[in-house]
Amino acid sequence: MKPTHIEHIGIAVENLDEQIKYYEEVLGLKCYNIEEVTDQKVRTAFFMVGQTKIELLESTSPEGTIAKFIEKKGQGIHHIAYAVESVQQALDDAAAAGVQLIDKAPRKGAEGLNIAFLHPKSTFGVLTEVCEKP
Amino acid sequence: MKPTHIEHIGIAVENLDEQIKYYEEVLGLKCYNIEEVTDQKVRTAFFMVGQTKIELLESTSPEGTIAKFIEKKGQGIHHIAYAVESVQQALDDAAAAGVQLIDKAPRKGAEGLNIAFLHPKSTFGVLTEVCEKP
Repeated sequence: MKPTHIEHIGIAVENLDEQIKYYEEVLGLKCYNIEEVTDQKVRTAFFMVGQTKIELLESTSPEGTIAKFIEKKGQGIHHIAYAVESVQQALDDAAAAGVQLIDKAPRKGAEGLNIAFLHPKSTFGVLTEVCEKP
Repeated sequence: MKPTHIEHIGIAVENLDEQIKYYEEVLGLKCYNIEEVTDQKVRTAFFMVGQTKIELLESTSPEGTIAKFIEKKGQGIHHIAYAVESVQQALDDAAAAGVQLIDKAPRKGAEGLNIAFLHPKSTFGVLTEVCEKP
């Protein structure tokens, strides 16, 4: 799939406001966007570091995947998102290589990107997202 | 500390050779370096994606931190490393902000970088490395 760069790193957090403060005051990054993604049941905050965004993810529901992740593994790094030219092509290539997909076709993610996830069972425990600018 | 970019993402793996194959054949990345870091009890493999490296980490000892991480959490994303101008300054700033440090001074990491780790207890579960080119 030949990704061009790491588009973002997703981090599961319990309290978005507390962690925005940490990323701004300790790491010296600047939060440039806060966005709720209703169908993923998350509120997100974004910071730019070079080519890559840090995306903090706070669950808006105890049933959300982020809430469940934190319940199981604790707060921490949740996924890596690779920027690719074509999400559909990346999915087709991954499926052809035997990778189990969470999404068989691109869907809308935060910041208007087209995104899809590969299943961590097929990626050695690393929840992997591919995304493209529409 | 104002990091310039994500220097690398560290991923804990059980079998380096198997995962190199996955990163090359499925993700289309190229492994450009394999290196053993004796004092960290790891064998590492590196791939470049834009500004950022993927660093696969295989433990060379059941007593190593990577082996213990996998035992506790399973294979997966282990740490984020931010590139900074000065590791010592970043450590001093973090300590002044109340962050617990694993390393109070820079030490040598893979690929000749000066590195240090912040404690995940102070960084909301995200094991955080800062590094600089010497």
